[in-house]
Amino acid sequence: MTLSDNFRIEKDTLGTIKVPKNAYYGAQTQRAIENFQISGKRMPRSIIRAQGIVKAAAATTNMDLELLPHSIGDAIIQASKEVINGKWDDQFVVDIYQAGAGTSQNMNTNEVVANRATELLDPSLDLGRIHPNDHVNMNQSTNDTFHASMQIAAMENLVHKLLPALRILYKELDKKATEFMPIVKAGRTHLHDAVPMRLGQEFAGYAETIQSLIQQLEHSSDKLYEIGLGGTAIGTKANTHPDYPLKVITEVCNQTSLPFRQPNNIFEFMQNTGAPIRVMTTLKELSVHLIKITSDLRLLASGPRTGLAEITLPSVQPGSTIMPGKVNPAILEMTHMVCCQVIGFEAAVSTAGTASQLEINVMMPMIAYTLIESIDIMYNAVSTLTTKCIIGIQGNEKICKQRMESSLALVTALSPIMGYDRASQIGKEADDKDITIKEVLKQKNLLTPEIEKAMEPKGLI
Amino acid sequence: MTLSDNFRIEKDTLGTIKVPKNAYYGAQTQRAIENFQISGKRMPRSIIRAQGIVKAAAATTNMDLELLPHSIGDAIIQASKEVINGKWDDQFVVDIYQAGAGTSQNMNTNEVVANRATELLDPSLDLGRIHPNDHVNMNQSTNDTFHASMQIAAMENLVHKLLPALRILYKELDKKATEFMPIVKAGRTHLHDAVPMRLGQEFAGYAETIQSLIQQLEHSSDKLYEIGLGGTAIGTKANTHPDYPLKVITEVCNQTSLPFRQPNNIFEFMQNTGAPIRVMTTLKELSVHLIKITSDLRLLASGPRTGLAEITLPSVQPGSTIMPGKVNPAILEMTHMVCCQVIGFEAAVSTAGTASQLEINVMMPMIAYTLIESIDIMYNAVSTLTTKCIIGIQGNEKICKQRMESSLALVTALSPIMGYDRASQIGKEADDKDITIKEVLKQKNLLTPEIEKAMEPKGLI
Amino acid sequence: MTLSDNFRIEKDTLGTIKVPKNAYYGAQTQRAIENFQISGKRMPRSIIRAQGIVKAAAATTNMDLELLPHSIGDAIIQASKEVINGKWDDQFVVDIYQAGAGTSQNMNTNEVVANRATELLDPSLDLGRIHPNDHVNMNQSTNDTFHASMQIAAMENLVHKLLPALRILYKELDKKATEFMPIVKAGRTHLHDAVPMRLGQEFAGYAETIQSLIQQLEHSSDKLYEIGLGGTAIGTKANTHPDYPLKVITEVCNQTSLPFRQPNNIFEFMQNTGAPIRVMTTLKELSVHLIKITSDLRLLASGPRTGLAEITLPSVQPGSTIMPGKVNPAILEMTHMVCCQVIGFEAAVSTAGTASQLEINVMMPMIAYTLIESIDIMYNAVSTLTTKCIIGIQGNEKICKQRMESSLALVTALSPIMGYDRASQIGKEADDKDITIKEVLKQKNLLTPEIEKAMEPKGLI
Amino acid sequence: MTLSDNFRIEKDTLGTIKVPKNAYYGAQTQRAIENFQISGKRMPRSIIRAQGIVKAAAATTNMDLELLPHSIGDAIIQASKEVINGKWDDQFVVDIYQAGAGTSQNMNTNEVVANRATELLDPSLDLGRIHPNDHVNMNQSTNDTFHASMQIAAMENLVHKLLPALRILYKELDKKATEFMPIVKAGRTHLHDAVPMRLGQEFAGYAETIQSLIQQLEHSSDKLYEIGLGGTAIGTKANTHPDYPLKVITEVCNQTSLPFRQPNNIFEFMQNTGAPIRVMTTLKELSVHLIKITSDLRLLASGPRTGLAEITLPSVQPGSTIMPGKVNPAILEMTHMVCCQVIGFEAAVSTAGTASQLEINVMMPMIAYTLIESIDIMYNAVSTLTTKCIIGIQGNEKICKQRMESSLALVTALSPIMGYDRASQIGKEADDKDITIKEVLKQKNLLTPEIEKAMEPKGLI
Repeated sequence: MTLSDNFRIEKDTLGTIKVPKNAYYGAQTQRAIENFQISGKRMPRSIIRAQGIVKAAAATTNMDLELLPHSIGDAIIQASKEVINGKWDDQFVVDIYQAGAGTSQNMNTNEVVANRATELLDPSLDLGRIHPNDHVNMNQSTNDTFHASMQIAAMENLVHKLLPALRILYKELDKKATEFMPIVKAGRTHLHDAVPMRLGQEFAGYAETIQSLIQQLEHSSDKLYEIGLGGTAIGTKANTHPDYPLKVITEVCNQTSLPFRQPNNIFEFMQNTGAPIRVMTTLKELSVHLIKITSDLRLLASGPRTGLAEITLPSVQPGSTIMPGKVNPAILEMTHMVCCQVIGFEAAVSTAGTASQLEINVMMPMIAYTLIESIDIMYNAVSTLTTKCIIGIQGNEKICKQRMESSLALVTALSPIMGYDRASQIGKEADDKDITIKEVLKQKNLLTPEIEKAMEPKGLI
Repeated sequence: MTLSDNFRIEKDTLGTIKVPKNAYYGAQTQRAIENFQISGKRMPRSIIRAQGIVKAAAATTNMDLELLPHSIGDAIIQASKEVINGKWDDQFVVDIYQAGAGTSQNMNTNEVVANRATELLDPSLDLGRIHPNDHVNMNQSTNDTFHASMQIAAMENLVHKLLPALRILYKELDKKATEFMPIVKAGRTHLHDAVPMRLGQEFAGYAETIQSLIQQLEHSSDKLYEIGLGGTAIGTKANTHPDYPLKVITEVCNQTSLPFRQPNNIFEFMQNTGAPIRVMTTLKELSVHLIKITSDLRLLASGPRTGLAEITLPSVQPGSTIMPGKVNPAILEMTHMVCCQVIGFEAAVSTAGTASQLEINVMMPMIAYTLIESIDIMYNAVSTLTTKCIIGIQGNEKICKQRMESSLALVTALSPIMGYDRASQIGKEADDKDITIKEVLKQKNLLTPEIEKAMEPKGLI
Repeated sequence: MTLSDNFRIEKDTLGTIKVPKNAYYGAQTQRAIENFQISGKRMPRSIIRAQGIVKAAAATTNMDLELLPHSIGDAIIQASKEVINGKWDDQFVVDIYQAGAGTSQNMNTNEVVANRATELLDPSLDLGRIHPNDHVNMNQSTNDTFHASMQIAAMENLVHKLLPALRILYKELDKKATEFMPIVKAGRTHLHDAVPMRLGQEFAGYAETIQSLIQQLEHSSDKLYEIGLGGTAIGTKANTHPDYPLKVITEVCNQTSLPFRQPNNIFEFMQNTGAPIRVMTTLKELSVHLIKITSDLRLLASGPRTGLAEITLPSVQPGSTIMPGKVNPAILEMTHMVCCQVIGFEAAVSTAGTASQLEINVMMPMIAYTLIESIDIMYNAVSTLTTKCIIGIQGNEKICKQRMESSLALVTALSPIMGYDRASQIGKEADDKDITIKEVLKQKNLLTPEIEKAMEPKGLI
Repeated sequence: MTLSDNFRIEKDTLGTIKVPKNAYYGAQTQRAIENFQISGKRMPRSIIRAQGIVKAAAATTNMDLELLPHSIGDAIIQASKEVINGKWDDQFVVDIYQAGAGTSQNMNTNEVVANRATELLDPSLDLGRIHPNDHVNMNQSTNDTFHASMQIAAMENLVHKLLPALRILYKELDKKATEFMPIVKAGRTHLHDAVPMRLGQEFAGYAETIQSLIQQLEHSSDKLYEIGLGGTAIGTKANTHPDYPLKVITEVCNQTSLPFRQPNNIFEFMQNTGAPIRVMTTLKELSVHLIKITSDLRLLASGPRTGLAEITLPSVQPGSTIMPGKVNPAILEMTHMVCCQVIGFEAAVSTAGTASQLEINVMMPMIAYTLIESIDIMYNAVSTLTTKCIIGIQGNEKICKQRMESSLALVTALSPIMGYDRASQIGKEADDKDITIKEVLKQKNLLTPEIEKAMEPKGLI
């Protein structure tokens, strides 16, 4: 078999280029393959799906507007649906670090859809009858369609994956709060003995943290619904039918059952990647707080003998290759690592955000990948965290109680009775003598019934 | 004069300490002065004011609840009002990098108010009659009051300063958008020739960017209204009267005319500094977009002879110590620098956010300073940007038009007529021959009336 | 076929677990597969290779020390070599977001090597004869071996890939500096007209930037050579033969031909991931400067008609799906995107760095992946940048000269002759009247031969 | 008194402006005051000092080169020395967020020196005889002199303050390592029981961490010595005598006793702020590791009753306004906060680093302030950390020993004897039954002398 059997020759403004014979993609994708051998990573499934949605919506709209013959339009829609369903994922071959704005990614889609649609229309036709730019990309530019695809993909993943996962995490933390409400323990501030509290209160704080983040994520992600389809290259709607923008977005809504809408101002949409940047800041906020929660849980579960051991985590796997029997908080650690990565991803996206110049921000492919990857790994981490760790946490009531009773902070109860200064002296004496507050009070004949009552942990909670 | 003339001797659990004779602050503040000689920076005016508000509100509430005699309570309120009004700012002397959680900052306030209140009550009394902890700090802990003070200060600065300044910036950008709508110019994507647009559209995009950020900031800052006063050390409300939390917050609302409220869950409030972290992420988002806008404006104003020169900025000062007559975009550069700093401040705050441990986040003093400083410099930068730059920008219609007419992107109009491939060839030929698209069309006898009409910039805008 | 045909049953301290029948990995890997379904990403080739190197070096050393029978040791070495060469990459199946410290990753290696070595020893034996912990992991812990593997992999990639690629980039920038030295152009500061310079000087600056970064990267990466093999769990060398550490590192040196060495203090090595953090800060520094250079090149190449157009970049692919004939600076944009990502990766790693607790930093798997990924994408981006962009850049002498001659900054030459104040007036007049400096001088009869000579661009360069 | 009594009228290219009558600064500084009311912060002492050094060095060099009459030059030198010594600090009034590149800051210096030098020359002269640009700024531009001043200031602060402070911290940690070497304690990985170690080993790790950072900071800061004085506006040395660069730098070396030198390539120096960016990355690295160390120490010192309590920190001040007798790790917390801020400052500087455009990076004033502030607060934090915390730490031998003996990780010693699998079972049984490893062994009659010996902690250390 000669080389010519493996390749076909295609042409663009830069000249001819060899494309694998059976590839559905064409010349521009091939150039991108050759130009960008960077990470070996390709755009995620959800982006490809969203690109298919946009192509199908455009073809539907263009037929409605009588700009595209039905034979061609129908074939494009069928091919796009195959793209949506993942049938041609192996034809989406451009590296995520690619040409600015995602031109290569859009052309990859245009070429695959055009060639597959041509084949569907009449398998005997030569490839190329349906044109990637003139037909598949009609009324479109990379700048509006890839941008919109990124936001459609992100929104689908948030609505169908991350937000539900966070709601379950909230619910399970809230259940634990209820379950652990009877367990009284020592509070700690500055990692030092503080007044008593309930283990359930600690978890109620965690639950509310997640609840508040869910609301913030719902709000912050709303801007993703603004998709400037029809803006074409820079928002001026050059080469676009005036009815196109509203119609095409309506079509996207139909396909996704999500309320996408036209931007308040389409130039703002084109200039910035404001919606992804905003969502990423909230994912960072989520990461910061998940680091707090997972760190706390590891601290409370530290031990079993040399740590606090106030809670016990479910065992999921052996924890050491050298120390037999060790079990580590592996799920919490994994979550913490994912949070570090998402914090980094936010830095990447906001750094890219500052690089917007004039009519568009060409950093879009990196932003798209990073946004989707952040949502994906956060979704999986949160789900795993809930099912493999949170729901199985047990409170160690006995240890909690012992430690609480030894806490020097019980002296706080004395303050309203004898004043801060005298109470301080008693606290100091207990510390110096390594005895409990009550023992100091006894030694000093100060343990009156009033004081004994005031020192009941329940009075302080 | 002997040492004893300059100092008085105070006492706390760690022993005796010399305090300047005339200082209103006391032993614990003095220890903090000696422990923390780090930056020479003290907490900003707005934090001190907010601390005064909290102390006054606490005293009012404690009198209402009959926990504090009126003679003492009234004196505390009067002293606190003086603190609110800035009379004792020179007595707030603790470095911003201080004891975790702001204990020193709270004690500084407690001591100043106690000593000043004692003086007000009866100047002949020895200092110390009104007790910083037992009276001024009654029903309070650093952990709830300093935390609340930070949020009160931030909210006052947002509501009264930054948000109004952003609204004015929006309005002035919007005016410029209207003013510049008649100016047609070349769009640019990838810094390369793109289809034509109006200068006003570019500015309309900027205006909407600010509008969207205003809404996000209004939403993100709402959590600042949740102040867990009455939670005391860890949220359990230890040592607090059950009616105290609601009453004291109502009193803060009265004093500030702002709708502060109890947190959904007080343990969440105590554990995290979630509200400051959230506001900072939005200030970062604002910074990213202001960098884009100010960079764009500098690019459009570049020249006067060797750059784009499509707009002219108001001259505010000479621009070079060696190149006479040079005038630089100084206000835009200043704004860009402030944005870089705020991006850094957000990184500082979120790094501190990950350091929360169990019941509180001890990083609060740094977070408080950084949050307030971010709002302050952003407010001043935005105000200056608007008044000294934006409102004076002029559009250079002639240059815009010339450059637009030379743009190779006018070939875009041909695409719907002759197809992408043929249009590409014409674009390439114009580029290679260094002539305009129209000249190529003329040479090829393709400049039909239809095409001439299609190439009217107005058709593309 | 029943389930039992597809799976075998393995056992660990947590109980029994089903493992795919033909898998070389075992129970602990299987648990990790089930626990960590997060990103779908596995550790990169170079990490697996380095893990193989460590296992082979350990077996060699253990045989030398007569701790391991030769039959077992030789089989382990042979299996490890297959791992090194990539034969079993499909058996390395643990997600990069996994158990803290990389326990699962180390066990994956231990299990694959143990089972493959058993097979090599005698294919008729049941799996399990050679033990993953007792034999393959002998004298080792995850904490020293995975840590060391990460550093070996990073160093190999730096020495054999990124550093050479940067040296070529430097050389090509330096060549361009020489090539462009005859081209005189306007300098620009604040994007405003500044004194003249040579295009070659601009490129010489870029070349030196890369040169300086090469030296910094060489220096910063040196700490990667410190590998604490033999420290086992926490640096105490528990369960290790005293001669093991030196011998095993010598063996790693033999295999890699790189000068790895024992750490100055092994507890520092165990506690931190100091070497990766350090390298990442230098990769960030590189990214910051590559963003500057690639942004500059895009600005200088902007146009072709509406920008500066002082240089021309090689065309690598069509640039727009809607604007025919457009060619964008795609390679520079890709590089900029990679740099944004690496800046984010550094943030991820340093955030993880702050999470070290006591004897180890459990964030290692994420750090390892992120470090290697950063080096890899930076290597590919730099190589592509050099070959597909830098070497093909052309200087546009004519445009450079025209623009330089129009620059108002030529007035600088007058300053030493007539003083800053008078020169400023002339500069301002030229600006106001929209004429050149020389024309003002002519109008004022000030264009003396002395001044004419002073204004020669060559005198200013 | 009329307005004219308080102000004098000065003139520049933008027109006339009122300057306070007694101000040494002039018109350009006054414009900057009015333009930049942003933070209320002015450049730090060390920057002003360095600006004075540069002005004095320039005047000396210009006299040597016979470009400046001695009468004028001597007066400039005397005035500059007063600036160096801080006599006119109140005349340096420009906000740190100011005109790009520091033009206002340089003009502030030029004006103060010119007016003061004029006064020194002959107090009866009108202000203005010695010209800020023509004489004081001779052979200089903001772009080379402010840039150099920033680096001189940073280097002086590193060499004379931060590096010595770090060396003392290292020495004290090293002393503690020696002091604590006899204390045997439980190691912890993943916050879970690990094999035994010495408290001194933990501190030896900390000491080496600091040692390694000192070396890195020494190396990273070396680039600060490259100062491109004489490059003037963009590195072309326009308007500069050919001998000026070398001579002026030599003069700076004389004044500072530090080995400043010419840059390898002056265009690289002008284009970037590479040296500050590099130093900041190392200060970030330092911060990451100080966060680790200070977090560890707080964890080890947690308690006194509800935490680990393996070490005791010196008490420096009372720790709670509500919980009497509480003492917190205030110095460690302060250090942690400073580290968070420095991490943020690095983000600010590197964000500014990406904003370099063509010949210079105009973000310099912000970079200069942030660099110096970072060094300053880090210096003070490190010094305070050493003297008020590290040197007073005590090890709690008894608690360390008790906890170590209870640790389940002692089972590790059994692994080489009975294999990983059987040892794991014993570990699990001890955990399940809540007894020690030894007790399990006894119950099973496995506590042979060999095993008893293997389990001696000393054998594992």
